[in-house]
Amino acid sequence: MSKAEKLQENLLKTAEPVNEFIHQILQDRTPSQLYEASRHLIDAGGKRLRPFLAIKSCEAAGGKKKDAIPFAAALEILHNFTLVHDDLMDHDELRRGKPTVHSRFGEPLAILAGDLLFAKVYQSVLDYAPAKMSADDVVNTLQKMTDAIIVLCEGQALDISFPKATDVTEKDYIFMIGAKTSALFKACAEVGAIAAGASSDTIDSLGRFAWDAGLTFQIYDDVLGITADETKLGKPVGSDIREGKKTIIMIHALKHADDKQRETLLAAMKGEEATQEAIDAAVKVLNDIGSIDYARGEANKYLESSLKNIKGLRDSSAKNQLIDVINYFVQREY
Amino acid sequence: MSKAEKLQENLLKTAEPVNEFIHQILQDRTPSQLYEASRHLIDAGGKRLRPFLAIKSCEAAGGKKKDAIPFAAALEILHNFTLVHDDLMDHDELRRGKPTVHSRFGEPLAILAGDLLFAKVYQSVLDYAPAKMSADDVVNTLQKMTDAIIVLCEGQALDISFPKATDVTEKDYIFMIGAKTSALFKACAEVGAIAAGASSDTIDSLGRFAWDAGLTFQIYDDVLGITADETKLGKPVGSDIREGKKTIIMIHALKHADDKQRETLLAAMKGEEATQEAIDAAVKVLNDIGSIDYARGEANKYLESSLKNIKGLRDSSAKNQLIDVINYFVQREY
Repeated sequence: MSKAEKLQENLLKTAEPVNEFIHQILQDRTPSQLYEASRHLIDAGGKRLRPFLAIKSCEAAGGKKKDAIPFAAALEILHNFTLVHDDLMDHDELRRGKPTVHSRFGEPLAILAGDLLFAKVYQSVLDYAPAKMSADDVVNTLQKMTDAIIVLCEGQALDISFPKATDVTEKDYIFMIGAKTSALFKACAEVGAIAAGASSDTIDSLGRFAWDAGLTFQIYDDVLGITADETKLGKPVGSDIREGKKTIIMIHALKHADDKQRETLLAAMKGEEATQEAIDAAVKVLNDIGSIDYARGEANKYLESSLKNIKGLRDSSAKNQLIDVINYFVQREY
Repeated sequence: MSKAEKLQENLLKTAEPVNEFIHQILQDRTPSQLYEASRHLIDAGGKRLRPFLAIKSCEAAGGKKKDAIPFAAALEILHNFTLVHDDLMDHDELRRGKPTVHSRFGEPLAILAGDLLFAKVYQSVLDYAPAKMSADDVVNTLQKMTDAIIVLCEGQALDISFPKATDVTEKDYIFMIGAKTSALFKACAEVGAIAAGASSDTIDSLGRFAWDAGLTFQIYDDVLGITADETKLGKPVGSDIREGKKTIIMIHALKHADDKQRETLLAAMKGEEATQEAIDAAVKVLNDIGSIDYARGEANKYLESSLKNIKGLRDSSAKNQLIDVINYFVQREY
């Protein structure tokens, strides 16, 4: 078993009690179809990165895994709520290699399933936070999560507006992925640390660690969107290009392209109209300009910056696992 | 000024500090269009019934109005979040006589604006609950609100499934409107009472009062959907019939119709296909069978049952205003 495979196994194993919790809190009520729709994406798979971040941050801050479970579950539910609504907004048909919630259950039920998941985020914490935890700490975790959701909405609104915008800079992109990915990563680490009863310094360090880890993850996600094996990716390779997404790769390439290269890139960003040949030609241009390598370099830069933030934490197995998983972000195949 | 007009003025005046709070918490951040979309429906008007219920329940339980403001705002935001998503699911173009959020800003932004409002419900309480309130009480109010949202989602999922269903009974209908309307009314009254530091008996009494008040309100809403003045209603009269909604009126009529009457009713429930003549003929049948009067009678039945629950509360101006507003439910013109 490769190191990456062992790590993936560790992520899934760590999340087992989280999955159990989620199944309890999403068990059928009337109407059962709503609950089926709300479980659909969670059951379809996923890496369970966010519960891992929450649980290992809790342990790295001196807490017990079981105290982090309701929060880890809340954060995974939160992530899935945003995916259900994002897929609908983006009209994506596939996620994790399976039909998205709206393609399987229709748009109205996808909206509602997302809303139900949203409410279940709060129910997980309000009804199941460890009894020994103070109500003040419960309120604190909910504030972190609520702030993250607000920023996530802002990030998604920006992301939607980007394909139409012609003047998106790398700075705009970093701001957007910070909102769409890092805000929730940060909440995972902070909430895990709060569940451990950590000091505000430790909570902040883990939060900063997770923020840069989120940037690393998302930048590398954009790399994989072009370089990955399609069967592993669970969606068509190059669909980011087709949809006109302003990824760090595309922003870099458009900035450095000559006229002919620019033409090739723009020809591929035409949605349904773009042929597979146009996509392939654009990928070649991205390679020629060095934009994919540039993105890999930036991902590694944020990776280093991320790890600096937890250097001061007491050594522990959990801390090592956090370091392993962040390193894995730039080594994974999907 | 008629009694009804005075009451409406009282509702709007009571909500003034609530509107101010809502404008503060929904003020522009990046991207501003998202915030514009999230304010759109709230600014379009509305009766502000839910803040009134929360504030007057707080006062009737011995509390101060100002302590209820963040909760009243949270509950009005919650109501508007459900309307934004409901309008999208129902493809309704008008609400409060103005374009709905998705017709004005497009579907993706309507989904996101709803999600943002959802998060703002929690932020209102988490960040702005009165400092003197215990964290346990804050958690308690959030539990009431979260439970209401879950039941609201279930009610909306049922409502969506009703037009296709052929066997909807009056019992199903009461269950559905309990979920769609009463659950939130109940949360308003309970949260208001908690903000007042009331005993659990008082919290429960006000909750039961508001539950039956919600049924009264919704049944009478269905009456108005057929009998109201279109300019006051803000949407086409008879659209419930056209959309095949299983209102208490329609359920009663279909149960008691002879074959010819049933044919007339079904001919009007065909969406875009149904002519205005078909709608008019169906309204005549509803009158002939006595279904509209039946609904009025049921609304009054729940009204009486509602008021019984607060008989035991100490007399106060707030209590009288609650009684007035519930009586107004069956006297209003829209």
